[in-house]
Amino acid sequence: MVFQLTILGTSAAVPTPTRFLSGQVLNMRDQLFLIDCGEGTQSRLTQLGIKKSKINHIFISHLHGDHVFGLVGVLTSMAMQSRKHLLTLYGPTGLQELVETTFRLTYYQSPFPIQCVTVDADQATELIDNESFSVKSFPLKHRIPCVGYVFREKEAERTMKVEKIAEYAIPFTDIKAIKRGADFKNTDHRFPGKGVLIPNSDLTTPPPSPRSFAYCSDTAFDETIVQHIRGVDLLYHETTFLSEMTTHAEMTGHSTALQAGQMAHLADVGQLVTGHYSSRYDELNFILDEAKSVFPNTVLGIDGQTYSVPLVKTPL
Amino acid sequence: MVFQLTILGTSAAVPTPTRFLSGQVLNMRDQLFLIDCGEGTQSRLTQLGIKKSKINHIFISHLHGDHVFGLVGVLTSMAMQSRKHLLTLYGPTGLQELVETTFRLTYYQSPFPIQCVTVDADQATELIDNESFSVKSFPLKHRIPCVGYVFREKEAERTMKVEKIAEYAIPFTDIKAIKRGADFKNTDHRFPGKGVLIPNSDLTTPPPSPRSFAYCSDTAFDETIVQHIRGVDLLYHETTFLSEMTTHAEMTGHSTALQAGQMAHLADVGQLVTGHYSSRYDELNFILDEAKSVFPNTVLGIDGQTYSVPLVKTPL
Repeated sequence: MVFQLTILGTSAAVPTPTRFLSGQVLNMRDQLFLIDCGEGTQSRLTQLGIKKSKINHIFISHLHGDHVFGLVGVLTSMAMQSRKHLLTLYGPTGLQELVETTFRLTYYQSPFPIQCVTVDADQATELIDNESFSVKSFPLKHRIPCVGYVFREKEAERTMKVEKIAEYAIPFTDIKAIKRGADFKNTDHRFPGKGVLIPNSDLTTPPPSPRSFAYCSDTAFDETIVQHIRGVDLLYHETTFLSEMTTHAEMTGHSTALQAGQMAHLADVGQLVTGHYSSRYDELNFILDEAKSVFPNTVLGIDGQTYSVPLVKTPL
Repeated sequence: MVFQLTILGTSAAVPTPTRFLSGQVLNMRDQLFLIDCGEGTQSRLTQLGIKKSKINHIFISHLHGDHVFGLVGVLTSMAMQSRKHLLTLYGPTGLQELVETTFRLTYYQSPFPIQCVTVDADQATELIDNESFSVKSFPLKHRIPCVGYVFREKEAERTMKVEKIAEYAIPFTDIKAIKRGADFKNTDHRFPGKGVLIPNSDLTTPPPSPRSFAYCSDTAFDETIVQHIRGVDLLYHETTFLSEMTTHAEMTGHSTALQAGQMAHLADVGQLVTGHYSSRYDELNFILDEAKSVFPNTVLGIDGQTYSVPLVKTPL
């Protein structure tokens, strides 16, 4: 039941000798979600031992090259591994044309099906909603259409206390409802406690809290983002610049480390992970210090590192 | 007066943990020529300390992704270094559309001028011919339109023996012709040897031999290539497979190491450099041995290595 984020690269615009371009893999209960594909993403996946065959969804935030030039390389390398199953791409207008044109001009036909979902960059949109998890996009504030993504586990079923099944002679057919929170009243006349309502809390233990992650890159500071990421356990928010470059950050549609900390604070998230650093910064501790000054539970996003959200039982 | 080839990557189709995708830089007297741009080329240039600002010509052999997916990343990273001067791209039909479409869909405008020369993949074509060097393309035999490139220095002028200028009272205005091979006859009546023809060999020493390099990747074995690369000092010829896969090589438009050796032998080149290895080969010595069995002066193409052609004086 893992829920962990692996950062492939943290460099903005161009790779540096120690930092690769944007790309992340969220592992949500062994389903892998690839978010952004800067140039070199296929190599980073190989280097970090991440199985491309387990990736069925790729989310692109926006079509600046440092977030998307590695996408087609990922797709063609998936094909080299004999992939046959569906891959779904999500991203703003133009993504499908970019992939299709590149395929056409490089004489490439994908041996596995690829569908492309064009994401509305002007309003929040539910992209996936199944029994296990949901994924929504929401607008970011950048120079071109750009979206963030929020991934949320669904609440799992409550866990049955096995000994109670015998104790209260609970029929098999009632268990599903009880796991979903129903109380139990035995109507079987052979049962001595017939008619007594047994509260659900006596029959089950609560499930772990559902976990969540939000990705916000690239974006200027924008309070309207708060509503979409409120309370997530893990927030990756770009920290391209230090505060001394606040005006430049605003002009170019980026955030300072201080602003990322403010966003994490306003949205009351669990932990903030920094990243998308300007290549002008060799030393990242100033980024960390600045974000921590307003949001103490901040960690530096580092190329190749994994950030886990543990399973936590909800209070009884 | 360097003439050297630096190999950025030697992997075919996909990068491996130890080999990058196709890309080479020919340094011809401090002018840099980039040949093919697999994904990751911008990083390889940085890692190897090669100045992108000195690259004014990029040659693309064909539009398979492993030779071109890194091109736009190179162009955008050149812009990040405040480049303002012209860059010329050369490649088969589709290259210009690929670059222009990618620029348009990623909201990118190049701050420096880029011109794209569409290369005819069906016949040999002179692309550059100036006082210092020439570059020609010629057809290769691949699954899609694909060209090789041959780079040749022009013969330099002969070197004047300085002491002869006084000895024969050679006027300044005659020196240019003598450096280009003319004999000298003094017509000045004040000169005692008036009317005697002094042969050029007595006045000059010969220039170094012009050097040359040919790039053949990707291609099946094809004897029609010989005429275009005959006698080059350095030949990079793809060796995707070993001979045990000759049929597969032919089917996929690639060469075996043995065939590359045969090509080097037929074309009477100086040295053969292997490369474009299938990812199935971890160990490359078998490739080397096979090519050497027919062309002894073969060296393994290795990522990051440089291969120099020394200046050699032509015989007096």
